[in-house]
Amino acid sequence: MATINQNYQKLPGSYLFSEIARRVAAYAQAHPDQRLIRLGIGDVTRPLAPAVTRAMHQAVDEMATAEGFHGYGPEQGYAFLREVIAREDYQARGADISPEEIFVSDGAKSDCGNIGDLFDRDNVVAVCDPVYPVYVDTNAMAGRAGDYDEGLGRWNRLVYMPCVAENGFSPAIPDRPVDLIYLCFPNNPTGAVATRAQLQAWVDHANRTGAVILYDSAYEAFITDPAIPHSIFEIEGARTCAIEFRSFSKTAGFTGTRCAYTVVPKDLVRGGASLNAMWNRRQCTKFNGAPYVVQRGAAAIYTPEGREQTRQTIAYYLNNARVIREGLAGAGLTVCGGENSPYIWARTPEGMGSWAFFDRLLQQANVVTTPGAGFGPSGEGYIRLTAFGGATDTAEAVERIRRIL
Amino acid sequence: MATINQNYQKLPGSYLFSEIARRVAAYAQAHPDQRLIRLGIGDVTRPLAPAVTRAMHQAVDEMATAEGFHGYGPEQGYAFLREVIAREDYQARGADISPEEIFVSDGAKSDCGNIGDLFDRDNVVAVCDPVYPVYVDTNAMAGRAGDYDEGLGRWNRLVYMPCVAENGFSPAIPDRPVDLIYLCFPNNPTGAVATRAQLQAWVDHANRTGAVILYDSAYEAFITDPAIPHSIFEIEGARTCAIEFRSFSKTAGFTGTRCAYTVVPKDLVRGGASLNAMWNRRQCTKFNGAPYVVQRGAAAIYTPEGREQTRQTIAYYLNNARVIREGLAGAGLTVCGGENSPYIWARTPEGMGSWAFFDRLLQQANVVTTPGAGFGPSGEGYIRLTAFGGATDTAEAVERIRRIL
Repeated sequence: MATINQNYQKLPGSYLFSEIARRVAAYAQAHPDQRLIRLGIGDVTRPLAPAVTRAMHQAVDEMATAEGFHGYGPEQGYAFLREVIAREDYQARGADISPEEIFVSDGAKSDCGNIGDLFDRDNVVAVCDPVYPVYVDTNAMAGRAGDYDEGLGRWNRLVYMPCVAENGFSPAIPDRPVDLIYLCFPNNPTGAVATRAQLQAWVDHANRTGAVILYDSAYEAFITDPAIPHSIFEIEGARTCAIEFRSFSKTAGFTGTRCAYTVVPKDLVRGGASLNAMWNRRQCTKFNGAPYVVQRGAAAIYTPEGREQTRQTIAYYLNNARVIREGLAGAGLTVCGGENSPYIWARTPEGMGSWAFFDRLLQQANVVTTPGAGFGPSGEGYIRLTAFGGATDTAEAVERIRRIL
Repeated sequence: MATINQNYQKLPGSYLFSEIARRVAAYAQAHPDQRLIRLGIGDVTRPLAPAVTRAMHQAVDEMATAEGFHGYGPEQGYAFLREVIAREDYQARGADISPEEIFVSDGAKSDCGNIGDLFDRDNVVAVCDPVYPVYVDTNAMAGRAGDYDEGLGRWNRLVYMPCVAENGFSPAIPDRPVDLIYLCFPNNPTGAVATRAQLQAWVDHANRTGAVILYDSAYEAFITDPAIPHSIFEIEGARTCAIEFRSFSKTAGFTGTRCAYTVVPKDLVRGGASLNAMWNRRQCTKFNGAPYVVQRGAAAIYTPEGREQTRQTIAYYLNNARVIREGLAGAGLTVCGGENSPYIWARTPEGMGSWAFFDRLLQQANVVTTPGAGFGPSGEGYIRLTAFGGATDTAEAVERIRRIL
C-alpha cells in the first residue's frame, strides 16, 4: 500500500487569493455598473520588450530548421545566458560570481521550492512575518515546519521574524539558533529594502553559526537608491553562506514567459558537501533546462536596446509606485515601500483590520487590494498595493481611495 | 548549522554519458580523418513542425502587445491545452480522463522527479532493470532507495524487475510487497511494449495491493500496432491506481522547447487523500506553469496540419528504427524494439560485454551507441541505438556495423 507524505495533510487551505476573488466577484455581481481597479495581484501588465520578442522570433525560426534546431540544452542553462548574467548582474557590481555558479530555470518559485531538496528535514527555518507563502508551504511539505496552529496562524517549528512599522520592517536576527534563513529584499509584501550594513549583519551571523541564507532578490530591478545592494553577493562573506534567487518575471515582464536563475557559490559547503554540486545534481536529475526560445529572449534583456526598453518599463511601474505611495501618505496613511519596490504596504487607518479595510476599499472606492493578514499574523493591520497596473487606472485608484479616507 | 540531505552523498557518480563522451573524444582526437555517426543519445534532430512554429510566432506577437500580453498563467496549464489533451489523447481512445486531471508542465523529467514529493519516505519502490536513471536517482535523493552497493550496481531498498531476452523484456510482478511501481512503455532503453493483458495484470495487482503505478508513456507516439495501448488509462481500473507521464519531447521534437503533462485521476486516493489534490497543491506551490508561447506551440500539435506534420516526423524516425532493427537482425544480432519505439536494444555478439562492444563499434565502425550496462546490471550484454538521427547517416551506420560483424 502506497503511503502519502502526511505533511501535505497539515497544510491549511490556501485561502488568500481565492477569498479575494470570491469577495470581488460577489461585489461585482451586485454592482455591475461599477468599474473595479485591481491593484491586488503581483502580476505585470506591460508587454515584453521589442528586443526580447525579436530574439524569441529569431529563436523560433532557428527551431524550424534542421541546422538551427536545438534539442536538449544544458540543464544549467546555455552558456550565452549564464555568462552575460555573471558579467552584468554580478561582476559589474563587484560581486565575484562565475557562470558555473548560475543555474537558469523556469522560475524563482520553482527554485525557492525545490532548494529544500538539498537540506535535511531537521533544519530550523526562519522566515519573515509577513512572508511570501512559498517559503513556508514548501518547508511544511518537507516536514520542517512542524504543525500548524490555526488560532495563531503559525507553524510550531518555524521561527518567525516580525517585520512591522515598529522595527522599520527590518527583521531582527533571531535570538535562538536557526539553520536556514529566508530573506527577501526588496521585500514582498512590505516593499522594504535592506541596507548594506543590515545585510552584512546577516552574512556575519550566518558565517558565525553555519546557517544558510536563502536570499530572494526577485525585485532588485526596482532599486533606484545607489546605496542599496541588489545582491547578497555584494556583501563580504556571502559566498560561504548564501544562495540567491533571481527572476526575469518582474525585471522584464516574464511572469508568463518563465525564466529565472539561482546562484549557488562554489564556496558554500555544509557537512563537507558543496551545495553548488548538490544543486547541479538536483537540477540534472529533476529538470531539463529552460526552453531555448525563452533563454534567447532572456539574453536579449542584456543588449543595449533590451536594457533601455526594460528600464523604461521599470520606470513606468516605479512611477505608479510613487503615485500610490505619495497619494496614500498624503492622505494620512503610514506607508512602506514604493520607492525601491513595486509594492506599497500601507497601514490601515485607525487600527482597522486588514479584511475590513480591504472590504471598505472594494465597496467604497471600487479598488481591489490584498489584505496584509493573508501574508502572516504580523501583516494584520496592513494592506498591499502593487504598482503593476496601468498608469491612468493607478492614478484614479489613488484618487478614489483619497476621497473615502 | 545547516545540515544537508545526506542521501545526495550516497549517489554514485553519473558516469554513463560522460564516459561515452570521454571515449568518443579520445577516439576522435586520435583519428581526426574518420567521420563518426552518433546513434547513442536519445535526443531528436528534426525541426519543429511548421504548425508549431507558426503558433509560437503568433504567441510571441501577442506577448508584444498590451492587449495580447499573458502574465502568470494557471499553474496547471491553460484550458485550451488541457482540454485538447483530454479529448484527443484520452477520450478519443476510450480513456475517461477530464481536463482537471491533466497538469501541463515543463517536462516529464521534472514531473517524474517531483512526483516523489507526494509519497512517504518509507514506500518500497519497484523499478525495471535496465531503467531510465531518473526514477532511481530521484528516489535515492528522497531516501527511499537505501544504500548503493557499488559491486552489485544496485540500491538495497529498491526492488529490481529484470527485463531481459529470457522474459521478452517484460518485467514480472514482484514476489514481495511493493508500494510504488515505475513502468515505462514503449520502454527506454529496451524499446519493448506492453500488451493490454500485461497492463491489465499490473493494474489488477496495484488495485489489489494499494500500490501506485507511475506510468511513463513518453514514447507512445511511436506505437504503430493498433493492439498496443498508448495509455495506462485505456486499462480498466487504472483510475484508482495509476499516474501517467506524457511528453511532447519525442512526439513533436520538444526536447529543447519543454512541454509535457502528467495525468493524476481524481479516483486515485491513498490514506484518505486525493493524489490529484496533492499534486495540484504541489504544482501551485512549487511551479508557476509552462510558458504561454510554449503551450500555444503544444496546442498546435493537435491541429489537422500539426497532426499530419508530426505524423511525418514520427514516420521518418520509425523508418530509421526499421533500418536499424532489420539491419542488425539480418546480421545475426538479437534485437528488441524498433517497431513501436525509437529505441533498438541489441544483444552483443558472443556474450561480449556492453562496453567492449561499444568500443568495437566506435573503433571499427565509427558508430557511437550506448552500452546497456549503463542502464543497470541487467543491461549488461546489450547496447542501445536510437532512431533519432538522419536517415542517410542511420543507413550508413547500419551498413558499417554489418561489415564488421
